[in-house]
Amino acid sequence: MLSLEAANELIWKKFKHLPVGYAEVDVLEGIDRIVAEDIVSNVNVPDFSRSMCDGYAVQAGDISTANEDNPVLLEHLGEVASGEKATMEVKKGQCAYVSTGSMMPAGADAVIMVEQTKVQEKESVLVFKSVIKGERMILRGDDLKAGQIIIKRGERLSPRHVGALVAAGIYEVKVFTRPRFAIISTGDELVDIGQEPAAGQIRETNSYALQAFITKAGGEVVRRVLVRDDRKLYRQELEIAVECADIVLISGGCSVGIRDFTADVINSLPGEGVFIQGVAIRPGRPLIVGECMGKPVFGLPGHPIAPVLLFKIVIEKLWHRLYGCLEEDVIRAVVDFDMSPSLYTHLLVQLEKGEEFIKAKPANLANPAQTSAISRSNGYIWIKDSEAGLCRGQIAEVFSF
Amino acid sequence: MLSLEAANELIWKKFKHLPVGYAEVDVLEGIDRIVAEDIVSNVNVPDFSRSMCDGYAVQAGDISTANEDNPVLLEHLGEVASGEKATMEVKKGQCAYVSTGSMMPAGADAVIMVEQTKVQEKESVLVFKSVIKGERMILRGDDLKAGQIIIKRGERLSPRHVGALVAAGIYEVKVFTRPRFAIISTGDELVDIGQEPAAGQIRETNSYALQAFITKAGGEVVRRVLVRDDRKLYRQELEIAVECADIVLISGGCSVGIRDFTADVINSLPGEGVFIQGVAIRPGRPLIVGECMGKPVFGLPGHPIAPVLLFKIVIEKLWHRLYGCLEEDVIRAVVDFDMSPSLYTHLLVQLEKGEEFIKAKPANLANPAQTSAISRSNGYIWIKDSEAGLCRGQIAEVFSF
Repeated sequence: MLSLEAANELIWKKFKHLPVGYAEVDVLEGIDRIVAEDIVSNVNVPDFSRSMCDGYAVQAGDISTANEDNPVLLEHLGEVASGEKATMEVKKGQCAYVSTGSMMPAGADAVIMVEQTKVQEKESVLVFKSVIKGERMILRGDDLKAGQIIIKRGERLSPRHVGALVAAGIYEVKVFTRPRFAIISTGDELVDIGQEPAAGQIRETNSYALQAFITKAGGEVVRRVLVRDDRKLYRQELEIAVECADIVLISGGCSVGIRDFTADVINSLPGEGVFIQGVAIRPGRPLIVGECMGKPVFGLPGHPIAPVLLFKIVIEKLWHRLYGCLEEDVIRAVVDFDMSPSLYTHLLVQLEKGEEFIKAKPANLANPAQTSAISRSNGYIWIKDSEAGLCRGQIAEVFSF
Repeated sequence: MLSLEAANELIWKKFKHLPVGYAEVDVLEGIDRIVAEDIVSNVNVPDFSRSMCDGYAVQAGDISTANEDNPVLLEHLGEVASGEKATMEVKKGQCAYVSTGSMMPAGADAVIMVEQTKVQEKESVLVFKSVIKGERMILRGDDLKAGQIIIKRGERLSPRHVGALVAAGIYEVKVFTRPRFAIISTGDELVDIGQEPAAGQIRETNSYALQAFITKAGGEVVRRVLVRDDRKLYRQELEIAVECADIVLISGGCSVGIRDFTADVINSLPGEGVFIQGVAIRPGRPLIVGECMGKPVFGLPGHPIAPVLLFKIVIEKLWHRLYGCLEEDVIRAVVDFDMSPSLYTHLLVQLEKGEEFIKAKPANLANPAQTSAISRSNGYIWIKDSEAGLCRGQIAEVFSF
């Protein structure tokens, strides 16, 4: 059976030429979208040297001996009003009043805070303290230099980027369009939202959970249906899904039972059909991956934890790789349990504050059908080495949900 | 000067009775909203015991001796169709075919996988393996028990909660309404979006950065204006802001210069006026907090890093406390620098993968005017103890952005 890495490589090989779309969006509307090109400042920010406080722009060398007992007297050239061009030049023995953010006049190389000065008469100022060259001023290009990259292609736009973008005069950014997903759930025992389950029936939850994860990750769900275990209906729905979406997810019908049509139905549509059936991971072992009409179709087992994990470790991975996404949301935690699984295992964990470290505990142990385990988990740990497993006290990477 | 803790307590004392609003939203639309009541499952999920695989529902005791050489023959009662009520009862020596998810028939206490059986003739099945009681079945209430809390009041609804909510038949959740913010930026040197800065002018960025952080945190910006340093205009704008928003943020005008009107203007409106002016933290020392017409007004220093940090450590804190929000987004990292600041300091840090731990490096050292430092930071560390400071190799809490 294929390893997870081999499965992901095979999927990448098949779909690496899938078309991706682009959109130009306002910076504030682009939050959480994946940026489609390096975004570069074309200007220096600030474009002139500025004062960091209210005070006097001086030549630091003039006041190097100034202290409370021996103030230095400077000629006062007047004020650089905030937001105006500084027209004077500060020469030896001179100063000019500057506010926070004022443009530094030519010649000046430091600012002395107003609290450390005293206006003597209209045209002169006493300075009671020395400053070092460059003190209390922001140099041209100190924040951003022309040509500097603010966000790299593949990064997710975050609130923290907004100030720098706007400072550089960038109000629109090029992002990848949202990939469109269709989700088909199948199972005669399932009832849809709004219906009351009868004896033997349960509520369909996977399509809702998948939609939430897809939307949060920046995708869009364009179709979501629940079909009976009827091969003809199922085939019709898959055909519609493949036509309207970029990626199709099927929940249920992946095992080997008499109503497990997924592989057959994928194979019945034009395209290469199923090329992966089963991956050596737990949960998620019955994963089916196929190609219909050029588009990826994923058959996910119906038990609630598998589809969510497979979305994170297979489907989102493909999409992120197509978009060149750099994101990886990993923290380190100390594990609070022992485990030696027989297969590559993705274990849902709950995190809690420990003495020095964050501690990770299993969110569930055996039952794969727990929506509640997903609900209380903060992420998952990937146990790759089944021989070594994980021992209490070890540091593990936790991939966050 | 007030400590940060004392300032936050004083702000809480003044505003703890601010009204909060509620809304009922669809589960999928509620993602990232703060939940306003404990959300409880009223049902057992599943509401009946189910099979976890395709196979035969049996009494485990009947096949305890079964192996390849000595299979056990059971009487076959027929099939429990998926989604249907199980009407038969499995008695000693009997079995019934069940699919994944089928209701367990009365009397059966385990499932033997179909691969470990062979249909002998129409009415009997050979079993080649033993099972333990409870194997391959999900018990009633195994996922959620009636009365079990799925999300606590004050938690943020996440995609991981969706499956459990839908499983319990909960499609709408009660959340807090988004607090409405108004942002006033002030400074004669500032130009708004779309304008080209002349010599001496720079682009206004704080209101955009604040809007991005507010929106991401679940708030709403209902007004955002840039005003000249003109006391009358400024006062008019503050009046409008206080009328239309729940919380007002002012960027700039908080120092002691001749154009620093913020405290005066807050005091000129009805209400208690300014009750905090200056807090012993860096950056953010000139913070002003006041009350106008019953609403909180925050005067934030204009340098870009301070408003964003003050939003996280003061403003969001008040709002989260009002909403009883339980969230705290903290990770542990090992610091890669030495620092002994003279004041409580919030240091922006960049995180990178280390050998065992995540490493934290300063995103900027001295310049408070760097939008680029915010842009490249992943969060901040709070250095509370200025005497001890932080030493390379120490573990610190990083509050994420």
